[in-house]
Amino acid sequence: MFGLMPREDKFFDLFEVQAANNVTAAKLFFDMVQSWSLEPERFRRLQEIEHESDITTHEVYDKLNRSFITPFDREDIHELASELDDVVDLVQSIATRMQLFHIEKTTPELVALSETLWNATEAVLKAVTGLRDPGKTRRVLDYCIEINRLENAGDRLLENAIGKLFHGTPDALQVIKWKEIYEGIEIAIDKCEDVANIIESILVKQA
Amino acid sequence: MFGLMPREDKFFDLFEVQAANNVTAAKLFFDMVQSWSLEPERFRRLQEIEHESDITTHEVYDKLNRSFITPFDREDIHELASELDDVVDLVQSIATRMQLFHIEKTTPELVALSETLWNATEAVLKAVTGLRDPGKTRRVLDYCIEINRLENAGDRLLENAIGKLFHGTPDALQVIKWKEIYEGIEIAIDKCEDVANIIESILVKQA
Amino acid sequence: MFGLMPREDKFFDLFEVQAANNVTAAKLFFDMVQSWSLEPERFRRLQEIEHESDITTHEVYDKLNRSFITPFDREDIHELASELDDVVDLVQSIATRMQLFHIEKTTPELVALSETLWNATEAVLKAVTGLRDPGKTRRVLDYCIEINRLENAGDRLLENAIGKLFHGTPDALQVIKWKEIYEGIEIAIDKCEDVANIIESILVKQA
Repeated sequence: MFGLMPREDKFFDLFEVQAANNVTAAKLFFDMVQSWSLEPERFRRLQEIEHESDITTHEVYDKLNRSFITPFDREDIHELASELDDVVDLVQSIATRMQLFHIEKTTPELVALSETLWNATEAVLKAVTGLRDPGKTRRVLDYCIEINRLENAGDRLLENAIGKLFHGTPDALQVIKWKEIYEGIEIAIDKCEDVANIIESILVKQA
Repeated sequence: MFGLMPREDKFFDLFEVQAANNVTAAKLFFDMVQSWSLEPERFRRLQEIEHESDITTHEVYDKLNRSFITPFDREDIHELASELDDVVDLVQSIATRMQLFHIEKTTPELVALSETLWNATEAVLKAVTGLRDPGKTRRVLDYCIEINRLENAGDRLLENAIGKLFHGTPDALQVIKWKEIYEGIEIAIDKCEDVANIIESILVKQA
Repeated sequence: MFGLMPREDKFFDLFEVQAANNVTAAKLFFDMVQSWSLEPERFRRLQEIEHESDITTHEVYDKLNRSFITPFDREDIHELASELDDVVDLVQSIATRMQLFHIEKTTPELVALSETLWNATEAVLKAVTGLRDPGKTRRVLDYCIEINRLENAGDRLLENAIGKLFHGTPDALQVIKWKEIYEGIEIAIDKCEDVANIIESILVKQA
């Protein structure tokens, strides 16, 4: 089927660029919080990645609006591009909040959530890369299951983090800051699951 | 019209299961906060209901992706299933937060908001049940109006709850906890209105 | 093209009413926070505008459900109407929160954010007004670029406002209140950008 539409390959190229950008951003964020290395250079790099992803996303929209034939449903293409872009937006925005909140140290909960997000972006990249090859449907669905598993793990990690945050008589200001950061990462992991859901739906329709 | 597509009845069966699950969850939550009976067994039951609803929702998606003929627009079916599922997700997530926040007593505002949510889920169940019967269009639209009325009532209850919460010099930590719980219930009521909006739109298109 | 469908002009009339309502609401809100004139009459006026916008939005939905021919994609019409309505909803809801929170003074950050929102609603009105005239495509796209610029400016203003809010050892209760107000305005500006994105997509498809 795809052999007949070689020019539509471009969509898959762009999705892969987006998904790879998400891995780069999530990996960088994980490194920052794990080693607590918050050099301004790293925040700037995150902003660059976010900006590059923006440009790629608009390339998808543009190509979509100008194409008569698309490899799958127009809405699915739009939603896939939009949600892939949301992941890096969220990572960058959490990092900015960490700066604005003057967060002074990392926590095991932050490291665990960030690692799960990074793992989820890796699984999304594998799923997106497999999407162009009809022979890999089974494997792509397995990556989607893995993303669902990571999202569930993220939910448990968030509950644990919130539970610890509210334990005893915490400082309200610290609660405001950390709640937003923890929840932000969980929302980014949720977005990875949204991507997996669209991919599953695309594959079922092609079956 | 529906007589010609007997197999499509399955969609209506699944929507009714989802809507009934929402009533069960909202009723259980109302009972919990009214009598302040927070046995772990009840939280577990809420999680079970949420999990059952997940499975039903995915059954709708699956059936949708595999059906050539559907009783109404594919997108409307997807959105209806997705928003019915959101209601129980929200109820379960508010309950979990109540546990994590170590909430120690109920408030009249919490009871009033929970009762309105329960009433809204009841009206949604009636509207969804009437949807399969073309002769009940007028009655279904009346349930939708009732849901809109309950959503407006919920808005007023939330304003009242927030007003009381910020009255005087409250403890910031209590404000953080209760604000999230009150707003969570109002979002769940909003979701019931989203369901009513889709149902209205489906009925108008069929007219 | 539009000359052949004179009755579809009604959609453009309704969009313009919605966009003009947003300007009125945003301008009123800006005046309120700039001169810190919070007479109850002004809050009532905002509620009226929000209510009028609701009615117009439902007129669009109704007309959409009853029309066989539409000036552009049905979904784009629905989304455009829905997001135009979101702007005034958000403005009204931020004003209500200001009352409930007993906010006692304005801040330069609040004035700057509100002015940017007002400017964004003005640019949206110009873009929406130009949409009915195929000869103004280039100008409409320029307004969309202007809205994007204002959204970026809003992001920077919000970061500055949050940074100031968390500077030193602020009172947690004040942080809760102001964070919600600042972020609410930024979300309303974001909605203006969502409107610009739909308009751009409509124009590209017509090209």
